[in-house]
Amino acid sequence: RINGDRLWAALMELAKIGATAKGGVKRLALTDLDKQGRDLVVGWGREAGMSITIDQIGNVFMRRDGANNALPPVMTGSHIDTQPTGGKFDGNYGVLAGLEVVRTLNDLNIQTEAPIEVAFWTNEEGSRFVPVMMGSGVFCGAFSLETAYAAKDTDGKTVGEELERIGYKGDQVPGQHPIGAYFETHIEQGPVLEDADKVIGVVPAVMGLSWYDCVVTGMEAHAGPTPMGLRRDALQVSTLIMQEVVAIANRYPPYGRGTVGMVQVFPNSRNVIPGEVKFSIDLRNVNDELLNTMHGELLAFLDQARSDTGLTIALERVSYYPPCPFHPDCVNAVRSATAKLGYSTMDVVSGAGHDAIYAARLAPSGMIFVPCKDGISHNEIEDAKPEHLEAGCNVLLHAMLERAGR
Amino acid sequence: RINGDRLWAALMELAKIGATAKGGVKRLALTDLDKQGRDLVVGWGREAGMSITIDQIGNVFMRRDGANNALPPVMTGSHIDTQPTGGKFDGNYGVLAGLEVVRTLNDLNIQTEAPIEVAFWTNEEGSRFVPVMMGSGVFCGAFSLETAYAAKDTDGKTVGEELERIGYKGDQVPGQHPIGAYFETHIEQGPVLEDADKVIGVVPAVMGLSWYDCVVTGMEAHAGPTPMGLRRDALQVSTLIMQEVVAIANRYPPYGRGTVGMVQVFPNSRNVIPGEVKFSIDLRNVNDELLNTMHGELLAFLDQARSDTGLTIALERVSYYPPCPFHPDCVNAVRSATAKLGYSTMDVVSGAGHDAIYAARLAPSGMIFVPCKDGISHNEIEDAKPEHLEAGCNVLLHAMLERAGR
Ligand SMILES: NC(=O)NCCC(=O)O
Ligand SMILES: NC(=O)NCCC(=O)O
Repeated sequence: RINGDRLWAALMELAKIGATAKGGVKRLALTDLDKQGRDLVVGWGREAGMSITIDQIGNVFMRRDGANNALPPVMTGSHIDTQPTGGKFDGNYGVLAGLEVVRTLNDLNIQTEAPIEVAFWTNEEGSRFVPVMMGSGVFCGAFSLETAYAAKDTDGKTVGEELERIGYKGDQVPGQHPIGAYFETHIEQGPVLEDADKVIGVVPAVMGLSWYDCVVTGMEAHAGPTPMGLRRDALQVSTLIMQEVVAIANRYPPYGRGTVGMVQVFPNSRNVIPGEVKFSIDLRNVNDELLNTMHGELLAFLDQARSDTGLTIALERVSYYPPCPFHPDCVNAVRSATAKLGYSTMDVVSGAGHDAIYAARLAPSGMIFVPCKDGISHNEIEDAKPEHLEAGCNVLLHAMLERAGR
Repeated sequence: RINGDRLWAALMELAKIGATAKGGVKRLALTDLDKQGRDLVVGWGREAGMSITIDQIGNVFMRRDGANNALPPVMTGSHIDTQPTGGKFDGNYGVLAGLEVVRTLNDLNIQTEAPIEVAFWTNEEGSRFVPVMMGSGVFCGAFSLETAYAAKDTDGKTVGEELERIGYKGDQVPGQHPIGAYFETHIEQGPVLEDADKVIGVVPAVMGLSWYDCVVTGMEAHAGPTPMGLRRDALQVSTLIMQEVVAIANRYPPYGRGTVGMVQVFPNSRNVIPGEVKFSIDLRNVNDELLNTMHGELLAFLDQARSDTGLTIALERVSYYPPCPFHPDCVNAVRSATAKLGYSTMDVVSGAGHDAIYAARLAPSGMIFVPCKDGISHNEIEDAKPEHLEAGCNVLLHAMLERAGR
C-alpha cells in the first residue's frame, strides 16, 4: 500500500506554485510557473533515484530501472499544466500518484522485472496553446512537432520559443521512447462516481472530441444612429450559433456534449455594433458516428445561417480525436487490482480527453478515476478526498505491478 | 465662406495621430496619443490668436475675444478622442470646424460682438472610461468630478491619474465658464441624409440613452465530463439576454435601438463551461416614455431569466440621459443659415449622443449634421465628402455670427 499522507503532501506542495486566491491553481503551459512546477517534480524524481529524459516537445520521463532493462517500461503519468482557473488535482494527481508508486517501491525494496516510468506531458490542457494534449499527441504522431512548435498563444508567443525559454526543449525525438503499458490516474472531472457513491472508476473509453474556431464577420457601425433593420451585427448571429451548439449536444444524450467556452468580440466597445466575433466550439461524443453527425449538423446550421443573414461565417476545425476505447488487458488490470483491494467501483466513460488516449496508440493503456467534489473540475474550487486519492494510487500500484512483474 | 481646403488639411493632419492601417484612427481618451492630438489643436488655437483655458476634467476652451467681452461666448466644439476602431471625422470635425470658423473670421477681419469659443470635451466616446460624454457631463453637473475621476479603464487606470499624467488636469472648476449659445457640427453617423441625398441635417433632438453592465454568474465546469443537464452555463443564459436586447428595440420602431457591443467571458477557455459573462447593453429612444418602457421590459426579462435558470444575473445602469430636444432659437439659426446658403436640408434625429446635449442644459444649443459615407461611423472606414464638411462649416459660421452679432 502507498503512503496517502505523503501523496497528499506532495499535491499540496506542488499546488503552491501558481496558487490562486480562491484556492485553485493557475499554472499555464510553458510559463515561468510551469517551469517552477517541472523543476520541483523533476527534483523529487531525482531524489527517488530516477533518471530523467526530456524529449523535443518537453515531455519528461522519470525512470526507475527494472531487473530486465531490455523490457519496455510500464509507464504512468499525466500533466502538471493547469487551466487559467484550474484546481490542484487535474493532471497533478496522475503525476504525483506515479511518484508515490515509485517512493513506495523504494520503501519496500521491491524490484520490478520491467522498468517503471513516470511521465508528465507538455500542454495537456490546451488553454494557452492548441492542439490540446500536445505533448502526448506529438509523441504518438497525431500531429507533427512543427505544428506544435508553431502554435501561438493570444500574445503571439509560440510553443517552440517558450519551450526554449523555460529550458525544457529536450534532445530525444518524440515517440522514440518505448512503452510496454500505460496507466493514468485522474480525478473524474464529472459527477458520476460521487452520485453513485463509488471510490474507483474503471474507464472503458474516452469520448472523441472536435474543436473549432468560428469567426462571424458583420459590419461595425454606431449603436445609436444605425437603424435596427440595417445592421449586420456579428454578435447577434453568433448567439444563434452558440445556442445551436448546445442544442446539437442535447439531441444526442447521454454522451453528446456541446460547449462554447471562449469568445472575443471586436472592437468590443459599448456603442459599436460588433463587426467580428470569434468563438470556440467544443463537441464530444463517445460514439464516433454520432460525433460525425453532430459535426454535420453544425455545418448545416452554419450554411443556413449564412444564407439567412448574409454574414460571413468561417469555421475551422482546430483539434479532433476519435473516441478511444482502452485495451482490455489494462482495463482488466485496473478491475482486478480494485477487486483485490476491495474498493467499490463502477465503469465511467471519460468526457475529458487525457494523455492516455494518445499513449493508447502506441501501447496497451488504461485509466483509473477517483471522485471529485460535486463533479467540478476546470474550476478553482476543484476538490478531492485524500482517501479517494490514496485508493486510486493503490490501484495504480497494483495494476502496474501486475504488468511490470516482480 | 470658410476655406474648405484648409479645413480638410487640418482634419487629415490630426488624423495622423493614432492613424490605423485600415485608414481609421485609434486615439482613446487620455492616452499619450490623445495628449498629442490635444497639443496639436491647442497649438493651432494659439496660432489663430486664441487664449486657452483648461478645466479640472480636462475640457479645453479656446477663446477669440469679441467687442463686448462681458457677453457670454457663443461656443462651438466637440471631441477629439476616438473609438478603438474609429474614423477621422467623428468629433474631430466639430472641433476643427470651430477652428476654421475662427481662422475665417481672422482672414476677413470680422469682429463679433460676443466672444467666440471653440471647445473640446474630454472622453466623449466612453469606450475607455464610462460615463460617456464625460467632460461635458461634469461641466453641466450631470455627474460629479469625483465620479469621473474614479472611472477606471480595463487595466484599472483612473481618469484622475491619466489626466494628470498627460498634463491636462486644468485649474478651472467645471461649469464655471459661461456659455451664451452652443453649436456643434458632426457627421450624421447614420444613413438618413445620404439616403435622402441632402447636404445639411438640422437636428431637432438627440435620442435618450440607457447603458448597463450585465453580469451573469453560473458555474465553471469541465466541458467534457459535465452532462448537459447539470450545467450552469453563464454564456448560454447571456445569449438569451443579448437577443432580447435587440428584440426590445425592434418592438419600438423607428427610434428604438438595442445593442450589445462589449462581452467578456470568464475564464474564457475552450474546454471550460463559462462561469461568468459580463456584457454591455445599450438602449436608446427619442421618446423618454418609450425608453423607460424598454428599460422595464429588460428588467422583466431578467427576472424571468433568473427564475427560469436559477443563475445570478446582476444589472447595473452605468449611464443614462434622457432624450434632448434642442432650443428653438438655435435650431432656427441653423435652419436659416442653411436656407441663406442654399443647401439642401432635412431634419434628422440624432441617434448618437453628443456633448451638445449636456451643453443644452446650460445654454440654448443646436446641431448641424452632414452626411457620412454609407452612414458608417465608429468604424475605421468612416468617410465624409470634403464639400459636405465645408457646407456644414459654412452653416456653423453663419449660425454663430447670427447669435454672436457683428
Ligand atoms: N483532462 C482534461 O482536462 N483534459 C483537457 C482536454 C479536454 O478538454 O478534455
Ligand atoms: N457621437 C458619438 O459617437 N457619441 C458617443 C456616445 C454615443 O454612443 O452616442
